[in-house]
Amino acid sequence: MKKLLLLTVLALLLAPINSFASEADLVVPNLKQSIFNGLGGVNGWDLLLYGIVVIVLGLLFGMVQFNKIKKLPVHHSMAKVSNIIYETCKTYLLQQGKFLIILFAIIGVAISYYFLALAHMSVSKTLLILLWTVLGILGSYGVAWFGIRINTYANSRTSFAALKKRPFDVMSIPLQAGMSVGLLLICVELIMMIAILLFIPGESAGACFIGFAIGESLGASALRIAGGIFTKIADIGADLMKIVFKIDEDDPRNPGVIADCTGDNAGDSVGPTADGFETYGVTGVALITFIILMFGETGILPNVEFASTLIVWIFAMRVLMIFTSVFSYLINQAIAKIRFAKEERFDFESPLTSLVWITSIISIIVTYALSYILINDLPEGLWWKLSSIISCGTLAAAIIPEFTKAFTSSKSRHVQEVVTASREGGASLTILSGMVAGNFSAFWKGMVMMALMAVAFYTVQDLSLFGEYPGIFAFGLVAFGFLGMGPVTIAVDSYGPVTDNAQSVFELSQIEKIPNIKEEIKKDFGFEPNFITGKHNLEENDSAGNTFKATAKPVLIGTAVIGATTMIFAIILLLKKTILSNGESLLQIELTDPSVILGLITGGAVIYWFSGASMQAVTTGAYRAVEYIKKNINLDKVEADIEDSKNVVKICTQYAQTGMWNIFAVILSLTLAFAFFSPNFFVSYLISIAIFGLFQAMYMANAGGAWDNAKKVVEVDLKEKNTPLHDATIIGDTVGDPYKDTSSVALNPVIKFSTLFGLLAAEIAIELIVEADKTGTTNIAPYIGVVFLAIGLFFVYRSFYGMRIKTESETIIKTEKSASKKLETSDAL
Amino acid sequence: MKKLLLLTVLALLLAPINSFASEADLVVPNLKQSIFNGLGGVNGWDLLLYGIVVIVLGLLFGMVQFNKIKKLPVHHSMAKVSNIIYETCKTYLLQQGKFLIILFAIIGVAISYYFLALAHMSVSKTLLILLWTVLGILGSYGVAWFGIRINTYANSRTSFAALKKRPFDVMSIPLQAGMSVGLLLICVELIMMIAILLFIPGESAGACFIGFAIGESLGASALRIAGGIFTKIADIGADLMKIVFKIDEDDPRNPGVIADCTGDNAGDSVGPTADGFETYGVTGVALITFIILMFGETGILPNVEFASTLIVWIFAMRVLMIFTSVFSYLINQAIAKIRFAKEERFDFESPLTSLVWITSIISIIVTYALSYILINDLPEGLWWKLSSIISCGTLAAAIIPEFTKAFTSSKSRHVQEVVTASREGGASLTILSGMVAGNFSAFWKGMVMMALMAVAFYTVQDLSLFGEYPGIFAFGLVAFGFLGMGPVTIAVDSYGPVTDNAQSVFELSQIEKIPNIKEEIKKDFGFEPNFITGKHNLEENDSAGNTFKATAKPVLIGTAVIGATTMIFAIILLLKKTILSNGESLLQIELTDPSVILGLITGGAVIYWFSGASMQAVTTGAYRAVEYIKKNINLDKVEADIEDSKNVVKICTQYAQTGMWNIFAVILSLTLAFAFFSPNFFVSYLISIAIFGLFQAMYMANAGGAWDNAKKVVEVDLKEKNTPLHDATIIGDTVGDPYKDTSSVALNPVIKFSTLFGLLAAEIAIELIVEADKTGTTNIAPYIGVVFLAIGLFFVYRSFYGMRIKTESETIIKTEKSASKKLETSDAL
Repeated sequence: MKKLLLLTVLALLLAPINSFASEADLVVPNLKQSIFNGLGGVNGWDLLLYGIVVIVLGLLFGMVQFNKIKKLPVHHSMAKVSNIIYETCKTYLLQQGKFLIILFAIIGVAISYYFLALAHMSVSKTLLILLWTVLGILGSYGVAWFGIRINTYANSRTSFAALKKRPFDVMSIPLQAGMSVGLLLICVELIMMIAILLFIPGESAGACFIGFAIGESLGASALRIAGGIFTKIADIGADLMKIVFKIDEDDPRNPGVIADCTGDNAGDSVGPTADGFETYGVTGVALITFIILMFGETGILPNVEFASTLIVWIFAMRVLMIFTSVFSYLINQAIAKIRFAKEERFDFESPLTSLVWITSIISIIVTYALSYILINDLPEGLWWKLSSIISCGTLAAAIIPEFTKAFTSSKSRHVQEVVTASREGGASLTILSGMVAGNFSAFWKGMVMMALMAVAFYTVQDLSLFGEYPGIFAFGLVAFGFLGMGPVTIAVDSYGPVTDNAQSVFELSQIEKIPNIKEEIKKDFGFEPNFITGKHNLEENDSAGNTFKATAKPVLIGTAVIGATTMIFAIILLLKKTILSNGESLLQIELTDPSVILGLITGGAVIYWFSGASMQAVTTGAYRAVEYIKKNINLDKVEADIEDSKNVVKICTQYAQTGMWNIFAVILSLTLAFAFFSPNFFVSYLISIAIFGLFQAMYMANAGGAWDNAKKVVEVDLKEKNTPLHDATIIGDTVGDPYKDTSSVALNPVIKFSTLFGLLAAEIAIELIVEADKTGTTNIAPYIGVVFLAIGLFFVYRSFYGMRIKTESETIIKTEKSASKKLETSDAL
Repeated sequence: MKKLLLLTVLALLLAPINSFASEADLVVPNLKQSIFNGLGGVNGWDLLLYGIVVIVLGLLFGMVQFNKIKKLPVHHSMAKVSNIIYETCKTYLLQQGKFLIILFAIIGVAISYYFLALAHMSVSKTLLILLWTVLGILGSYGVAWFGIRINTYANSRTSFAALKKRPFDVMSIPLQAGMSVGLLLICVELIMMIAILLFIPGESAGACFIGFAIGESLGASALRIAGGIFTKIADIGADLMKIVFKIDEDDPRNPGVIADCTGDNAGDSVGPTADGFETYGVTGVALITFIILMFGETGILPNVEFASTLIVWIFAMRVLMIFTSVFSYLINQAIAKIRFAKEERFDFESPLTSLVWITSIISIIVTYALSYILINDLPEGLWWKLSSIISCGTLAAAIIPEFTKAFTSSKSRHVQEVVTASREGGASLTILSGMVAGNFSAFWKGMVMMALMAVAFYTVQDLSLFGEYPGIFAFGLVAFGFLGMGPVTIAVDSYGPVTDNAQSVFELSQIEKIPNIKEEIKKDFGFEPNFITGKHNLEENDSAGNTFKATAKPVLIGTAVIGATTMIFAIILLLKKTILSNGESLLQIELTDPSVILGLITGGAVIYWFSGASMQAVTTGAYRAVEYIKKNINLDKVEADIEDSKNVVKICTQYAQTGMWNIFAVILSLTLAFAFFSPNFFVSYLISIAIFGLFQAMYMANAGGAWDNAKKVVEVDLKEKNTPLHDATIIGDTVGDPYKDTSSVALNPVIKFSTLFGLLAAEIAIELIVEADKTGTTNIAPYIGVVFLAIGLFFVYRSFYGMRIKTESETIIKTEKSASKKLETSDAL
């Protein structure tokens, strides 16, 4: 009974997929026709052919890198460790896979129910849409798996390479792995999207695009949230032992270390790859949707040819990105080789920085060039105006990392301030000083984005072609440009988990303790290993990894915000088109409309809740992990029991799953509730979560980055391990863990999932309003909204009160003075 | 030359005071006439007479309480300590006074320059406006001084009362002091506002209102920001010594303790009183302005009689508040006496909670009753609709404290979670768990406010009287109702600094070590003192004080947000009225307008900057304080050198001032810059800082409250001082210090000051746009904006880089491994 009700409700929500589908249906067949007319004198088929060739080459390049990394020399002690990590990751991913199947089952049954029973669509067409949703989920899941696979090869290879005298490969291997992931991700994405355009019958293409985007977004959200919680439970659990037992990072006796390494992949590798995959897809779909709604046959300013031109141009730009990224990577690699290959020490951040800048400059040049070739026949100087807007985005993607470095790099004055403050004021000032870094970074980056968006807007504001909405299109293009050097952005983001793992692999392999190891390596691999500089290099490299992990985050969240504006446009247009019987449009989104103010307030509330709920999941889990590790660690052994390590992984998985279920339940229910209350309110709510999410994410990511690197400075530069200063910075780092790697990073997919999923609900709400208006009856949508609100609030309540540390300990606080004894006897898992 | 330029610029900004003044001029003489026609059958003069009688009685009641407290018995050892605290506070306040004079001098010269030289106004009229600005500043400053004076009597009396067997007075005295401050504040406010209505010539009244509001707001902002920084530098400085030297809270050997006690007053007493004074004034002025712009002679829907009715009704409601507050206080006091006067232990939070609820219920009843008497002849059931809206606000002011308690009270499950988490996970989980409390509280309270605002809006949405803007007026009234039990809100807020001080006075007096003290007290005061239960009671009372300090904060910030919406309305109307030569209105504030999206982003950026900058000032100052105290503390002495104590006060003052200058410079410049860029952008920016500020303030206030009380739980309930658990919670508390008492609380006046000051700049910008439009020339406003933006960004830069811990220490990090030695030799002050 309960299930049936749930299914009916879910089915109702999916109604608008159909309405959107039919909207797009009208336009896509004609679009397809126009698309093959070609652009800028180039035949359509030729264009397509070039595109496919570039994509295939990109894929090949990625696969070649993969194989190269796999074949790199590595000592078996290290390979063994990275294999254990991979195996644990596999267990984790399989579990996540099951979760995704359940999630899809719920949504899939509902989709079928709606399309078959309510919309009387053919079985084959329904299956097609379902297929694309599955493909979306599989896409996110698949690239995540690929990322883990290559990273768990790269980690031991990097670790081994560090033993050489010249640490060039220590930088080069993780970057190569990252490029491989980035290229694969973009190529798969493009193949899928082009497949929809090519092989799907025109009348289903629109629905398949949306189905695909929802699938991607669902997969990415789940992987980001669960991965983020998992990794940080493990990380905090392992880290705090450093203070309690005065042991080193990655001490093999610590049963939390394997979980930590798994977490680095589950969170920092799976997360960005799935997220990146989703971001590229959704931003593309948002732009295509905008173009169809604006210029499609039933759009505001119907102009099918213009629409198809823009769509082809956008695809061309995306394909181009593969080319520029590979090209820039090769150039940068060549330069780096000349500069650093013979060095015994160099700044690992330097080649990453130059890669970002080279790619950005080449991208901008090629953008102008290709736009000139393809669309210079468009009126009003559109080719250079559109190129300039995209370039604003691309520029942002290069400038924002620089700003990030000013707050999180271990050489930055903010990080130095954290260290200085910690020395005199202990953990208190560590925390405060790190927050200051986060806050200032949010200000500066927010202003940079604002300025670039303003420039983009002023570039197009006089264009008559875009009617009243040149700004929306401009923002969408900025988001698009933001992602304009996709593979490189993903590559520098993926650098971090590899370097982090590499360091762990080194410690866990205990390679330096193997008898006659120096001779063995000399004999088998032909070089003399140096364990001390090796360790030092790995630590320094980890610091560079931290910084660049921090630089990619604002780029991804930035696109969520700017891109969301474009997606929300679909609701706005629908509202505008809906004219009630009193002759007024349903659209009321002036700042003086109370529902707008209320929506803005509600959005803020939800973002703060999300930050709290995701941190709570980490806190409870970390509590359990710490408790378990404290009880089971045995410092007399050489390394921890594999069973103990597995149990820690189990704790992490368990809390990650529980946390995620609560969070998903809230997001689904509240999104539906708000959409049903009032579509105007909902539009404002979506904009609010996007903007609040932007700042919260940037603040958290960079405060976390600053703390992380402050700890690194103490360990690597100052060499003051196991001092009070070190303890203080460890506390900072552990606070920063869920900040940067749980809450911050999950905001991006959550915002986009809310927006996509909300689009559907908003369309139903609008239909209900129109129906009530026509028949003169009461609009029932708000009542449905109240039900969902109640469910949502229940889960908000549960996301703290249901996640609390168990009641045994509570009663202890009340009744006993020392809780430690009893806590130990309470069941640990 | 530089000064002349500055003056010219400032003078230009003040132009619109005049334009607003002339707007109001038209309306006020007629209004006055109408006002004296009376309401609901009551003659205008009689109404006024009743009002004045109530106000005078309120004042008298406040003064009587003051004298009663002064005459309460106190042992000279305690009186001596509280006298030292008062003297230090005096020094601090005098210094702040000087700062305010400088600030006024700059603005005053500019006002004169503008009115005399540019607007050719008469000298006497200009002086009149200046006078009211001064009165506004003096009002904020004066009530702050009064608050400090009464609190530094109440602290020692409370402390002494704690020695008795029955601790009723421990609760009663701080509450009495709070009520005295609250009543005085509201009465002075009302006297001043009525004086403007009565004695100021009609044609200047409008300008005087605005002058007064700016003065209040300026005073309150300065006192809040500087006080907030001061108190937390001292607090952290003193607190951290507990960890370093394992000494107790308020140990007399700690030279930071006197600064801490001064800070409690400078921050927690001065802040809320000045802030409260400002809030009451500005919300009133906002509502009056709204009414004049809506229904004044040149308003949108001219209806002078209706306007005067609403204004008189609003004043009647405000006056009523004095009556209901005193009445409720007396009832509550009587009930509390019956319940607790004979108890040896009772829950100190209980009578405060009942006071809030009793006042709220009585206020709501009286609101309906008086509205029925005065305005039941208005159409559309307006009397009960308006009463209901006000009641929504009043209800919020009672519900929100309950929600606050759920997150910050020492009995709340959130605070218990913080303690539990700290036990296993140390400071890391303390911090994370406290943040979770803050985040969840922001969600729930945001939702409560949203819901009550929605109810208010739905109550009036069908009213034809308010044209298109019933929502704005409804929100303004909610803010007004929020403050509907003013003296009580201020009283429970002021409870905290007294209880905090009382505890310190106890320790510093070292009363239990005085020879034959028991006999002496028995002989002189007639009771047997018990020092152990006395200390315990003071600690528990401090915890109650923390909770209620936390409850008042969201109420004050809530009014800022909701009230700001009303104030911003002035700009919106101006924009709407301004029709350009192309026939379009200047108003473009739909969510699809890019300037709105950009404004929302910019607002977020500025709030994050503010949080960072205010915390940075505390961090640097605390660093210096800790450094100084560590060096100069002498644990072999009985108490700290008075010179050392004074030096700590000096450090606090110095950093508070520097921090404040930077912050003020940024706020002034950015407000001007954004207003000049585009008034539409600016409207959206103001709404954004209000909403971002709301959440940031609630989050910070409650996370801070949770940490503070978690520490209390460890100290008072668990009695685990000087354990690792205690250390962890101290770290939480010190992080929470600037959270709750610096950044959070300053957001309220900052938002309002930005809005008021921005109104003026926006008017100039609009004039420039219109002029450019008429003459066909370029609008120069954005260029002026760019200049101010540059200045603003420079000070943003300085607010971190100029506030950093000195470079000596920086070089140490780079070159030496141990910095402690060199740091000690670097000059401390």
